[in-house]
Amino acid sequence: MTLFSYLNRARNGFSSSSKLLVVFSLSSGGLVAYSESQSSIPPNNRELEGLPKKKKVVVLGTGWASISFLKDLDISSYDVQVVSPRNYFAFTPLLPSVTCGTVEARSIVEPIRNIIKKKKGDIHFWEAECTKIDAANKKVTCRSTIESNMGKKEFSLDYDYLVIATGAEVNTFNTPGVKEHCHFLKEVEDAQKIRTSVIDCFENAILPELTEEERRTNLHFVVVGGGPTGVEFAAELHDFVHEDLAKLYPLVQNMVRITIIQSGDHILNTYDNRISTFAETKFARDGIEVNTGCRVVSVTDKAVNMEVKATGEKVSIPRGMVLWSTGVSTRPVVKDFMDQIGQGKRRVLATDEWLRVKGCEDVYAIGDCATLVQRKVMQDIADIFKAADKDNSGTLIVEEFQDIIDDILIRYPQVNLHMQSQHLSRVTDLLKDPEGNARKEIDIEGFKLALCQVDSQMKSLPATAQVAAQQGTYLSSCFNKRELADFQPEGPRRFKGSGRHEFLPFRYKHLGSFAPLGGEQAAAELPGDWVSVGRSTQWLWYSVYASKQVSWRTRVLVVFDWTRRYIFGRDSSRI
Amino acid sequence: MTLFSYLNRARNGFSSSSKLLVVFSLSSGGLVAYSESQSSIPPNNRELEGLPKKKKVVVLGTGWASISFLKDLDISSYDVQVVSPRNYFAFTPLLPSVTCGTVEARSIVEPIRNIIKKKKGDIHFWEAECTKIDAANKKVTCRSTIESNMGKKEFSLDYDYLVIATGAEVNTFNTPGVKEHCHFLKEVEDAQKIRTSVIDCFENAILPELTEEERRTNLHFVVVGGGPTGVEFAAELHDFVHEDLAKLYPLVQNMVRITIIQSGDHILNTYDNRISTFAETKFARDGIEVNTGCRVVSVTDKAVNMEVKATGEKVSIPRGMVLWSTGVSTRPVVKDFMDQIGQGKRRVLATDEWLRVKGCEDVYAIGDCATLVQRKVMQDIADIFKAADKDNSGTLIVEEFQDIIDDILIRYPQVNLHMQSQHLSRVTDLLKDPEGNARKEIDIEGFKLALCQVDSQMKSLPATAQVAAQQGTYLSSCFNKRELADFQPEGPRRFKGSGRHEFLPFRYKHLGSFAPLGGEQAAAELPGDWVSVGRSTQWLWYSVYASKQVSWRTRVLVVFDWTRRYIFGRDSSRI
Repeated sequence: MTLFSYLNRARNGFSSSSKLLVVFSLSSGGLVAYSESQSSIPPNNRELEGLPKKKKVVVLGTGWASISFLKDLDISSYDVQVVSPRNYFAFTPLLPSVTCGTVEARSIVEPIRNIIKKKKGDIHFWEAECTKIDAANKKVTCRSTIESNMGKKEFSLDYDYLVIATGAEVNTFNTPGVKEHCHFLKEVEDAQKIRTSVIDCFENAILPELTEEERRTNLHFVVVGGGPTGVEFAAELHDFVHEDLAKLYPLVQNMVRITIIQSGDHILNTYDNRISTFAETKFARDGIEVNTGCRVVSVTDKAVNMEVKATGEKVSIPRGMVLWSTGVSTRPVVKDFMDQIGQGKRRVLATDEWLRVKGCEDVYAIGDCATLVQRKVMQDIADIFKAADKDNSGTLIVEEFQDIIDDILIRYPQVNLHMQSQHLSRVTDLLKDPEGNARKEIDIEGFKLALCQVDSQMKSLPATAQVAAQQGTYLSSCFNKRELADFQPEGPRRFKGSGRHEFLPFRYKHLGSFAPLGGEQAAAELPGDWVSVGRSTQWLWYSVYASKQVSWRTRVLVVFDWTRRYIFGRDSSRI
Repeated sequence: MTLFSYLNRARNGFSSSSKLLVVFSLSSGGLVAYSESQSSIPPNNRELEGLPKKKKVVVLGTGWASISFLKDLDISSYDVQVVSPRNYFAFTPLLPSVTCGTVEARSIVEPIRNIIKKKKGDIHFWEAECTKIDAANKKVTCRSTIESNMGKKEFSLDYDYLVIATGAEVNTFNTPGVKEHCHFLKEVEDAQKIRTSVIDCFENAILPELTEEERRTNLHFVVVGGGPTGVEFAAELHDFVHEDLAKLYPLVQNMVRITIIQSGDHILNTYDNRISTFAETKFARDGIEVNTGCRVVSVTDKAVNMEVKATGEKVSIPRGMVLWSTGVSTRPVVKDFMDQIGQGKRRVLATDEWLRVKGCEDVYAIGDCATLVQRKVMQDIADIFKAADKDNSGTLIVEEFQDIIDDILIRYPQVNLHMQSQHLSRVTDLLKDPEGNARKEIDIEGFKLALCQVDSQMKSLPATAQVAAQQGTYLSSCFNKRELADFQPEGPRRFKGSGRHEFLPFRYKHLGSFAPLGGEQAAAELPGDWVSVGRSTQWLWYSVYASKQVSWRTRVLVVFDWTRRYIFGRDSSRI
């Protein structure tokens, strides 16, 4: 019974606080280490105790934004219902690793029910797709995505607050042939399909009675889009081919070709250019072709057709597998909702700085499904001036401006960015005249002139897990403080109207980003303009990604997968 | 770099001979521990050296029979080509564990290329399906199963020897609705689909706006067939529900129902009846319903319709998921081949005792795709008598019979079984007269009478992994001894014709069988009429199944999966 008692020990160890993987866990808690704090009053007793009825919150989606929102939400004040066609959370930054079996699909998913189970109280999950948001009647219609022999598949849910966190679709830019012939990499299923497809290409290329040209075409892997996903997939694929498949398919190992097609001038062009250069140099050394400045115009059953942007030249390249990873697009249900609320002409659902959907009461949108539209200073410039000009003199003195500047900086973060870009150390420097001389007072036209450059500093947030997670966390803190905020608003003063905003606006804090480049090499952009590349960065990547796992289970599985890959290589079975 | 050097050590450890899992490995080698013995003469030099050209062997299938054949085959004498739509070997006895995530699908598969890589020489694998066996021209036609953008998908292979090891299909007995509505459990993909389907049933049953009856119907799991596969699935499902899902779906946990429908009088009726009784008692305690003596007549989208065999009563039961696991049937390509060679009226492809397909030269069939048809003594009785009657006296004396009895016992194993059943200790007892008196001599009529009961002892072999593996090993040993056997035949004497058979006929040795029953309980039938049940048998099961894995990789993965299940439970994500 030695083994049995060992297992018992192991089980107990994990239930409390295992030190097993401490080397991988730089941050102790992990991103979603749910607090076990419970409602002090059982929910169904609230009304008996004379407390107000709990508000109904419906959350759409189970991705980064939704999970981060749920993790910190105090569900003693809310009835929560979560709706998503996926009954699990997926650690999407590891999806490219799943495409080649470096990490198994199951190792990066955590059932949503495991997560909500830890939050005792009124929280429910329904595996269904939201088909209609009816903001006028505060209702959503959902449909089960499961094939079943039951007739009834639709149901509707009422809400007091709706949180839209449905993520985005792949954007094909309506390029002909993409939907039919390309793989995407947004979901776990996509990664599993790519894995099978890679093996298929090899099994196909090695069959008897093929010409060499046919074999080469079969083994030409084309990646459209040189962003982090495309680059990481190309790197993973290169490693898979050279570390594992070359030994198993010796006859065709020299016929493999990997090509990245990027419309910009560099791959990873949202990163620091030191990282782009490092990646391009490494890929050149590895034999991964990078075609920059090329736009794909169509994909056919045998080729990818592209246009060289500089010359307008048309090029057709024979293809095997194609991965399409170029930007995101709005889901139909969100698009329909946008039409309802007068956002029909926009490309993406817009929210204000408190993540409230514009033109709609009590609806919030977080993550890739929405974009935060920062209010421009110039839209409010008259109101700001009026609010600052306490004595209604028609001119603003420095003291009056200083009185109001904190509220301006909170409400309009672009002011701070503008000061940084202009190397202004003090806020009063904003009021200097065009020659750089300090002014004692300024009228409305001078004030407009002083701030007219500010709004050019506004940037939209990238569609990343990091942004989504921070938005979820921010929104839950607002929900938790809602009752308190009625008496003690914490936000900046309202320039239009009176009083203060209930909450501080959402502010994104960039904690850095990684680009694993294969061959145990990675690049990282870290806060403070710090760039790190090479093998040590890969180990940093391992540490951060292990620590960021949502549960001990997935943490153990991911680390086990990495170790298994190191010892046994990647599996090439076609399942 | 501590971790790095640890991993390096680990990797080296596994490459040589790891002791890590010694507790699980009762047998040291594992079933398919390939010998690294290589051809002493590189194949392409054979003709230069004046050696005969290597014979071409085509093997269809990558299951137990095929893998066991390949593992021991001396490929210095053969050009081997393996054709199968699955590029991996699957450890099928663990398939029921995959249906509920106790073991992951990837943990029980090993790429065929990993296996053949170890055998340096002319051995190739093509991922394709054999669509036609042309025995007259010694050729097979194959078609790639992969969707691809290449035109050419068919190719043909010539052979000198063909080994058919394609396994079998599920037998639906043409029951209406089975193909449309039931799950099967023959392939890894089947197990993965069942896993998703089980989760779907729960996610569906918990949705809002359903009646309790609808929820109960959704959660009624029906297993048709009370053999090992059906029973093991029911047991796994019961564990999954009670150990994992009940916590995650508390609203519906008491609505789950598992029903086994068995046409025989007992479940596991090929096992010792002590095991059947143990299983039925355990299932009754667990609340798994067992309907014996019932035949399913049709499956509709909402119900399973069955007939109680004793009374003829028709019963319709509302159903959720249905698993159909009742016997095997011949694949179309084999059926077509049977028509060609005059076996069209048979149900299953027939081989002789040397595993050669009857009515066909140089074609062998092993595993579930064929059945070994033992030659009857009474078919050959005149020839046996003639061969034994050396002096052509028309009567057989005891000495003449003793001269030939060893060859008889080898050629007709049913003689030995008959003697055991009649409690005869000496072979000469066979010649006793009906009153039990010894006879000095016997004529042909007396001889026929003495042996007329013998053939009733013939049994067909079960369609199990154990039989398939033993057949593969046996056949490879025949192939390896082929040249030697021309000079030194090792088989029994031919009663028709002269000389001896080249090889000893195949003889199956039953090493025992397991039936895991859930809740850490298993039953085992071991050699020597020994039956073992309970928790210790489950640990024996773990040990044997870990040791029987085809590679160290799968062994580590399976043991890790068991440990993971014990610590973290089974995953309920719908992927």
